[in-house]
Amino acid sequence: MNGNLSLLDAFYNTKYQVSGNSRRNIQVLKDAIMDVDGNMESDIYGGGKLIEDFEAKIARLLGKPSAVFFPSGTMAQQIALRIWCDRQGIHKVAYHPLSHLEIHEQGGLKELHRIESVLIADKDRTIRLEDVLRMKDDVACLLLELPQREIGGQLPPYEELEAISAHCRSKGIKLHLDGARLFEVLPYYGKSASEICSLFDSVYVSFYKGLGGIAGAILAGEQDFTTLSKVWKRRHGGDLISLYPYILSADQAFDLRLARMEQYYRDAVELAELFNACHSIATKPLVPVSNMFHVHAEAPKEKLEAALSALCEETGIGLTAWVSAVGDTASYFEVSIGDRYAAIPKEELKRAFLALDAKMKSIS
Amino acid sequence: MNGNLSLLDAFYNTKYQVSGNSRRNIQVLKDAIMDVDGNMESDIYGGGKLIEDFEAKIARLLGKPSAVFFPSGTMAQQIALRIWCDRQGIHKVAYHPLSHLEIHEQGGLKELHRIESVLIADKDRTIRLEDVLRMKDDVACLLLELPQREIGGQLPPYEELEAISAHCRSKGIKLHLDGARLFEVLPYYGKSASEICSLFDSVYVSFYKGLGGIAGAILAGEQDFTTLSKVWKRRHGGDLISLYPYILSADQAFDLRLARMEQYYRDAVELAELFNACHSIATKPLVPVSNMFHVHAEAPKEKLEAALSALCEETGIGLTAWVSAVGDTASYFEVSIGDRYAAIPKEELKRAFLALDAKMKSIS
Repeated sequence: MNGNLSLLDAFYNTKYQVSGNSRRNIQVLKDAIMDVDGNMESDIYGGGKLIEDFEAKIARLLGKPSAVFFPSGTMAQQIALRIWCDRQGIHKVAYHPLSHLEIHEQGGLKELHRIESVLIADKDRTIRLEDVLRMKDDVACLLLELPQREIGGQLPPYEELEAISAHCRSKGIKLHLDGARLFEVLPYYGKSASEICSLFDSVYVSFYKGLGGIAGAILAGEQDFTTLSKVWKRRHGGDLISLYPYILSADQAFDLRLARMEQYYRDAVELAELFNACHSIATKPLVPVSNMFHVHAEAPKEKLEAALSALCEETGIGLTAWVSAVGDTASYFEVSIGDRYAAIPKEELKRAFLALDAKMKSIS
Repeated sequence: MNGNLSLLDAFYNTKYQVSGNSRRNIQVLKDAIMDVDGNMESDIYGGGKLIEDFEAKIARLLGKPSAVFFPSGTMAQQIALRIWCDRQGIHKVAYHPLSHLEIHEQGGLKELHRIESVLIADKDRTIRLEDVLRMKDDVACLLLELPQREIGGQLPPYEELEAISAHCRSKGIKLHLDGARLFEVLPYYGKSASEICSLFDSVYVSFYKGLGGIAGAILAGEQDFTTLSKVWKRRHGGDLISLYPYILSADQAFDLRLARMEQYYRDAVELAELFNACHSIATKPLVPVSNMFHVHAEAPKEKLEAALSALCEETGIGLTAWVSAVGDTASYFEVSIGDRYAAIPKEELKRAFLALDAKMKSIS
């Protein structure tokens, strides 16, 4: 913990950071509402022009008839799965072993909705058609996360996605998209959001990942599905009298950064190459398919932290604020490209990676 | 619906309104963050100085060891009741038939937590000690709402509250306070928040009722209780990466208006007198015990709406934007005093009430 704290401090003291858009401070909100007319009316319990306009805008982009703004993806996705389970009369869903629902939500799906999860595919790869074909359990719904965040943002080939979708439709299994980072994979797939979403019955997207909003999510699908999702949103305590601070920020972030996803993706590919040229380092995936990837190092967490802290001080470039252990001898960290990367002079970046390469040789 | 819409329009076109603090528009947020340093760091998933400082401040005021900020009271209260039910091994709680949990939450307590509700007391009065003594069901928890909003903001005598608390303690029944409008009743009781809260095992307070914040709630109690409430907050999808827009607004509203509750209460007493002097009108309670009351009229909803719309246009004073029917021959609306009331010149107010009296004579 001390190690992480000092890396965190060192990271924030650097002139340049490779990940993210900006610091998560109050200025993000100030910037988001600065130019908004103060006379604009708040949304009221899910109604009003401010929230309805944004929901309609995102529904159009996703190619779905209707969309509902939620305070969080945790809430939106549990509700989507609950609706499909109730409709199918089966209280079981399938997803990846490292799905957000399985590892980051304190078992909410089980504790609140009594829905069982069937974990398919190995932890270190994405779900394949054969995993779905091999599934023995009767499930109401299959959830796919694009990209699979916990394994560096991996993606299945688009054809496999189409095949999984076709199979689920033929079997009456609902297909839900965990699209927390959906906009981040559009450049790699070379598809529009609505093309990808047409493969799914319901879709969740987030506004604070690559887009850089403050918080908030959209759940989209058919009208009867979203209407019911609003009832569940009320039950969850998510139907706040006012969600506009998040909506205004989401809308601004969306308009600002959606078109930049192509650049973030290219930047990620370039940056991963720099990492992979270093001793005892390999990115996962080796060639990124979105704005994100994981950096795996053959060095214990504490040693990597110390090396990265020193690198911050010596080069003024922060590669990460956090390192996670992989057993006793290896470690990794996550990189998500946003606005910050483009500000780093290429020569300084190259010097930092030469220094990283040297440090890795001495610790691994 | 058309009638309500036109009354709403007429209300918003008036120069003065008797209820509320200000319009619910974006300016509320702009004002709340205008003077906040943009470099202040966001809270992150319930941690960080910004959220922890506010939680500690409200915990101190409520006289509880610990407090947790929630996006909504709906979420905070379901979680409080779930924790008490799990701890007691009884999945049943008691509350008033017009509790928020019973009529405004789409049955979340049952649908998400499988907790049964035992409704005690008649709809038109507060819960008395005898209701609790007479209760046959084994319940984990009794919830009291102070003041009882749906019946005009009524309160039990303070001695009765003490007696109910003593009885619950002796029987091992947890006592939870729905204090959505707790700060609004401090002047009438002549007690501090912590004195009142000492009668309860857990307490919820809101920041967007009389205090006029944007949204958000605090749940307070012993440390082990609030620690567990954070797990449930995550499960509900309420553990947002950033809650600061609500926290900053709550904090500002709290500092601005807590000391004004005494004045709002006096204003409510004064205003209720003016209503009660009108033909076929009686407030509930007759003498307010907080900043709020209901205005009951012996006139059908549509007729009262038309009269109040005309009053808006003729006097420039809006008494309400919404009227609810009570059967076919009567109707009522809610008044909650905030900052707006003090701005109305007394002479204009009196003229408006003379006009209301005349209108009531012609429609009732």
